[in-house]
Amino acid sequence: MEKIARSNRPLILITNDDGIQAKGIREVAEFLKPLGDILVVAPDAPRSGQSSAITVTTPLRMKVIDRQEGFCMIRTNGTPVDCIKLSMNILLDGYPDLIVSGINHGSNSGVSVIYSGTMGAVLEGALLHIPSIGFSLCNHKADADFSACRELVTGICQKALASPHWPQGIGLNINIPNTPRLNGAKMCRAAQGHWTEEYDCRIDPHGQEYYWLTGTFKNYEPEATDTDEYWLKQGYATIVPCMTDNSARHTPELSSILGL
Amino acid sequence: MEKIARSNRPLILITNDDGIQAKGIREVAEFLKPLGDILVVAPDAPRSGQSSAITVTTPLRMKVIDRQEGFCMIRTNGTPVDCIKLSMNILLDGYPDLIVSGINHGSNSGVSVIYSGTMGAVLEGALLHIPSIGFSLCNHKADADFSACRELVTGICQKALASPHWPQGIGLNINIPNTPRLNGAKMCRAAQGHWTEEYDCRIDPHGQEYYWLTGTFKNYEPEATDTDEYWLKQGYATIVPCMTDNSARHTPELSSILGL
Repeated sequence: MEKIARSNRPLILITNDDGIQAKGIREVAEFLKPLGDILVVAPDAPRSGQSSAITVTTPLRMKVIDRQEGFCMIRTNGTPVDCIKLSMNILLDGYPDLIVSGINHGSNSGVSVIYSGTMGAVLEGALLHIPSIGFSLCNHKADADFSACRELVTGICQKALASPHWPQGIGLNINIPNTPRLNGAKMCRAAQGHWTEEYDCRIDPHGQEYYWLTGTFKNYEPEATDTDEYWLKQGYATIVPCMTDNSARHTPELSSILGL
Repeated sequence: MEKIARSNRPLILITNDDGIQAKGIREVAEFLKPLGDILVVAPDAPRSGQSSAITVTTPLRMKVIDRQEGFCMIRTNGTPVDCIKLSMNILLDGYPDLIVSGINHGSNSGVSVIYSGTMGAVLEGALLHIPSIGFSLCNHKADADFSACRELVTGICQKALASPHWPQGIGLNINIPNTPRLNGAKMCRAAQGHWTEEYDCRIDPHGQEYYWLTGTFKNYEPEATDTDEYWLKQGYATIVPCMTDNSARHTPELSSILGL
């Protein structure tokens, strides 16, 4: 596939995990057109819960589905991380100025971020030291109203593009409450917790059991006032900086357990 | 499916991302039999590069393929994380005493860990505060010789089972060099780097392009002496503690960029 031509404007690469037909990615591409050229490379179907998964055992394909001056939209059969990798290796000479993932239909707050394909793409960008931001609206409906996100999304992307020194190895996880009027935005950390009652067990017509993943997130620390879960409930957008390197540096407990 | 009966012995839950037929998971199950009862719940086929992916849009199934006293082996159509979730929610009353993932055929050192299904399962266990350890042998061959891993794997699992205070939210990523004699084991951190030359582009019989994921890992810091990449080259097993929470705590740079 031929390379995407660069202009003098910033280049913004956009992907998501809801698939290229989702309203959220279409809207964010429109929001960001005034800030630069737009390259959308996104999965051909929903890929929720894909985390940082990559496609190893089947070949990947790409198809241009819309091309205008300063705007190109390409669908792939890959995961969100595959979309970033294909862009870096096949479509672009050099790096984009900004990677945006989303706007996701549904929240990626608390520990859920570990499963998020939206954030998988963001961490892939951060590994390459590209400013990378994931946006999620706390409304999972297909026809969710993203209009209240516009000012926040555009403002943060403008700031990221204007900054010469994005911190290396860090991407942003931004959740936006489903409210017509935001109270503001807060830097915070992911709430600790885990999912409970995770399966709906059914019997198929042949008498065999099968299980649908479902469940609810249980916040271990509902009283903590520095978490994303807390501030989303107060009507604030939450900004959690996420590191690509999850190595724990100080682990005297473990050294003692392992005798090392 | 009926619950797995517990005995007075510790219960060790084992999964992997190479699939239930892989030599590595069969061998580690044998290594660990002297330490406790064994429950193997693993994917029915290879799931490399699945990270923390979960299966959302298709139903999951399980099938018991071997059951003896103190030993049960179940295959699923899910990812490594699905295998842990199914075990916790459907198969077990209460938590296992230890989760082991692997032994993976091939290394999971450096930044690769972000894509690793082996480590996805480990982080899932760590989210639930269960001692969880991933083992990988730096030999990707199907018939790799795991015998030199036995002493290390058994020793570390014994220590984990004996410890009343495993640190919360931390799992271990242990890589073992492909050598008949280990020089020892080192606690270290993941080497920073990224993958390069990631695609092999081909043309199918219908004239359409397709891409195979491939590439090589480029270590950004080959001189650093505290990374897993460094110590593996010296013939040491490497132990990297990995956190489930990747929120960055101190980000004055970002606060300044975002004006927050």
